[in-house]
Amino acid sequence: MFRKLVTLSEAKRIIQQHFPPKPLEIEKIKLLDAFERILAQDIVSKQNIPPFSRSTVDGYAVRAKDTIGAEENKPARLRIVGLISAGEKPKTMIKQSEAAEIVTGAPIPIGANAVVMLEHADRKNGDLEVFTMVTKSENVMKAGTDIKKGETALERGQMLKPREIGVLAAMGLAEVKVYATPHVAVLSSGAEITEPGRKLQPGKIYDINAYSLSTAVLESGGKPIYLGVFPDSLTEMEKALKNALTSANVIVTSGGVSVGPKDVMPRVLNSLGKPGIIVCGIAIKPGKPVTIASATGKPVFSLPGHPASALLVFHLLVRPLIQAMSGRKPTEPLEVEALAGMRMFPAKGRRTFVMVKLKRDKSSRLVAEPASAGVSGAITTLAKADGFVEIGENKQFVEAKEKVRVKLFDEDMPQLHENMFPQHFLREKNT
Amino acid sequence: MFRKLVTLSEAKRIIQQHFPPKPLEIEKIKLLDAFERILAQDIVSKQNIPPFSRSTVDGYAVRAKDTIGAEENKPARLRIVGLISAGEKPKTMIKQSEAAEIVTGAPIPIGANAVVMLEHADRKNGDLEVFTMVTKSENVMKAGTDIKKGETALERGQMLKPREIGVLAAMGLAEVKVYATPHVAVLSSGAEITEPGRKLQPGKIYDINAYSLSTAVLESGGKPIYLGVFPDSLTEMEKALKNALTSANVIVTSGGVSVGPKDVMPRVLNSLGKPGIIVCGIAIKPGKPVTIASATGKPVFSLPGHPASALLVFHLLVRPLIQAMSGRKPTEPLEVEALAGMRMFPAKGRRTFVMVKLKRDKSSRLVAEPASAGVSGAITTLAKADGFVEIGENKQFVEAKEKVRVKLFDEDMPQLHENMFPQHFLREKNT
Repeated sequence: MFRKLVTLSEAKRIIQQHFPPKPLEIEKIKLLDAFERILAQDIVSKQNIPPFSRSTVDGYAVRAKDTIGAEENKPARLRIVGLISAGEKPKTMIKQSEAAEIVTGAPIPIGANAVVMLEHADRKNGDLEVFTMVTKSENVMKAGTDIKKGETALERGQMLKPREIGVLAAMGLAEVKVYATPHVAVLSSGAEITEPGRKLQPGKIYDINAYSLSTAVLESGGKPIYLGVFPDSLTEMEKALKNALTSANVIVTSGGVSVGPKDVMPRVLNSLGKPGIIVCGIAIKPGKPVTIASATGKPVFSLPGHPASALLVFHLLVRPLIQAMSGRKPTEPLEVEALAGMRMFPAKGRRTFVMVKLKRDKSSRLVAEPASAGVSGAITTLAKADGFVEIGENKQFVEAKEKVRVKLFDEDMPQLHENMFPQHFLREKNT
Repeated sequence: MFRKLVTLSEAKRIIQQHFPPKPLEIEKIKLLDAFERILAQDIVSKQNIPPFSRSTVDGYAVRAKDTIGAEENKPARLRIVGLISAGEKPKTMIKQSEAAEIVTGAPIPIGANAVVMLEHADRKNGDLEVFTMVTKSENVMKAGTDIKKGETALERGQMLKPREIGVLAAMGLAEVKVYATPHVAVLSSGAEITEPGRKLQPGKIYDINAYSLSTAVLESGGKPIYLGVFPDSLTEMEKALKNALTSANVIVTSGGVSVGPKDVMPRVLNSLGKPGIIVCGIAIKPGKPVTIASATGKPVFSLPGHPASALLVFHLLVRPLIQAMSGRKPTEPLEVEALAGMRMFPAKGRRTFVMVKLKRDKSSRLVAEPASAGVSGAITTLAKADGFVEIGENKQFVEAKEKVRVKLFDEDMPQLHENMFPQHFLREKNT
C-alpha cells in the first residue's frame, strides 16, 4: 500500500494550518478552583491596595516632627488621644503633640504620618514617652504600595499559581476569567486489546494507551474523556467517535492503523466529517503510521498502537495543540548534553528518536545509552528511559562518544545533580 | 513581651520530632485517577508482558531456517496454511516449509520463530514466495520482553505520570494503591480581613492568605479545606479549628499572631489539645512571629499575616511536611548563581530572605535585584520576584556584586535561557 509520508515539520505546519494554536473560549470560575489555569484577561486594579495607609507594627501613630530629637534620656512627651484597632475607620485625628495607640494593619489616622514601635515608647501618667525619633512614613505601608489603582497587576496568559491567586484575592476577586479546559476524548482500538481489570483471554493483551494518553492529556492542561477500548469494528468506533465529536475538542485514538488486512482507521477517520484525513504517515521513527484528520473542524489523531510510539507522537504533535487550546505556552523538554554510549543508526530518511538512559562514565561525564535493543514498543523501556535523542532525517548515524542532546522526560533527575556541581542545562528554542 | 526565638533549623528539628515526615495511610484508587499520586507498593508482575510472543509487523509467520538463502531472484517457496489475526489464539501450527499470514500484534503460532514482512513476500498460485532471509526472532516481540513475570516493574514511592500509569495498565491493574492525600484546613484571621467578593468596608482589606496558601497546599500534594476568614474572636476560631481537627491532617492559619492588644492566636493554639505550642517565634526575616502547635497529634501552623511572609514560611516548614505525608519526596527549589545587584543587609541574628528579581547586566551576567525596598508584606512584590536570596544568621551583609545563589520560585524562566546557551543550574542538597 502506498503512503505519502510527510516530514515532521510538514506535519506540524499542516496541523497549525487546520487548527491555529489558540485558546478555546473563556470561562469564569471560582478563584479557589483556578490553580494552574491560564488567565484570560489583563487584571487592572480598580482600587489602591492597600486602600488606605496602614501601620506595619504595633505602636503609636504620631506626627514624625513631634519626635524630632527624641532619645532614651530625652523622650518626646505626647498626649494619647485614642486607640485604633485593625478593621476600624479611625475616629481620632492626630494634632500637634498627640499620639494614638495603633495595632498592626490598622489605618493611620488623619494627621499622623509615622508609627513609633511599642517597644520604643512607654506610658507615663496617661501620657506617652517616645524614646526614638521616627521619620515620615516610618512603619507605614502607604495606600497603593502593593498595587496602584489602574495598575495592570497580572497579564493575560499567566498561569495562576499561589502568588498570582494571592494577587487576585488582594483585589477582592472571588472569581476569575480563565481559558476553558479542552476536552480530549481518548480511545484504544485493536482486536487484541482488553481493558485492565478484566480477565485476559488467550491472544489478548491489556490496553496501555488509553491510560497513558489520558494521563498525558491531564499533564498538558486538558481534561481526558476516557472512551475505553474498541475492537476493530467500523460501526462501533464510528458511533463512539461521532458521539465524542459533539462534546470533545480533540480526539485521540491509538492502534488499528497498520496496513494489515483488518485496518479500518483511515476509513473511520474519513467518515467523521470533511475534509477528513490531512496527514497520513510521517517520516519519523517510531511513529510512522500516525494519521490525522479534521472532522467538523476538530482534530482527530490516530496514533500508533505501540505504547512508546503513541506517547512520543502525542508529545510531538498533540500536546502542543492541547497546551495552546488551554492557553498554556508550549513547553519544550529540558535538554542535557551527553556522549552517545554507542553508535546509533537512524531509520533511512526518517527523523529518528532513540530512547536513552543516562549514566555517568568513570570521568563522571554523562553518557546516553540506548534504553532498548530494538523493542521500541515496550512500555517499560519507555518507563525506564530518562529521555530521547533526536537524529535528523539526513544524518547517517551518530558515532559512539559523539556529543548528543538528550531531551529529558522529567526535569528532576537525581543523577544529573548528584554531586551538587553545576550541570549544563539547555532548553531548545521552538522548532 | 518576651519570646524565645528558635533558629530555622531548630524549628525544623522540633517539627520533625513531633511529626515524623512519613506518608499517611494507603488507599486504593482507580488508575485513571492516579495521575501524580505516589505509589504505595512495589509492583511485581504476576505475568509475562506480553504474555505470548507477538508479531511486530504484518507479514508471514515462518520457521527462520526455511528462508535460508532466499533472495530476490531465488525466493524460498512456502505453503500458506492459515491466517492469524490479532486477539486470537492461533489454530494453525507451522511445520517445515509452511507459513501463516499474520498481522501486527497477533500471537506467533507454534512452530514458527520469525516473521517475514508483507513487502518481502508475494503470493503465487496459493503459495508464498519469500524474497529475503529472516533470522530467528526477527520481527517477533517475545513473551516477557516488556515485563518478566516476577519482575519489579515499579517501586513504592514513584510518582505516577503517563509512563508509569501505562506500565500499570500493561499489567491489567485497573486500581492501584497510593498514599492518601493529606487534608489541610486553611483559615485567615484578623479583624481587618474581608473575604474576596464582598464589599470592602472602611479600614478593611481583602484576604489573601487563605487563597494563596490553599493553592500552595495543592501544589504540595495536599487537598485544601478552605475554612474562610475569622475575626479575632477566640470562641469562633476555636470552634472552627476544633471542628477542622476532626477531619484535617494539618491546620494552617495566618494573621492575628502579632504582639498587639488583640492577639489571641497563642491562647487559641494552646486550647486545642496537648502539648500545645511547640515553637513560638523563629529567628528569620520575614516570618518571625510564626507559632506552631501540636494538638491531638496534629500540626497547627499559625503563620504571619503578611502574605509574602506567610507564603515563605509555608514553603520553609509546611510544604515539606505535606509532601512527606502525601509520600512525595521533598523538593528543593532550583537555584541559579547571580551577582547581588546591591548591598543586602540581613536582620541581626535572623536568617534573612531577600526577594529578588533577576536581570542581565551589559555583560549578560545574571544580577539579583532586591524586589522591594522594605515592603516585605506586599503580595505584588512577591508575585513579581523571581526568587529569593538566603542570608545566614551570622553574616554581616552581602556586598554588591558578591556572588549569591537565588532560589527560584519557578523553574521555567525565560530570561535564564533566552540565548539558548548553557546556564549554571544548581540544586541544593537537603539541609
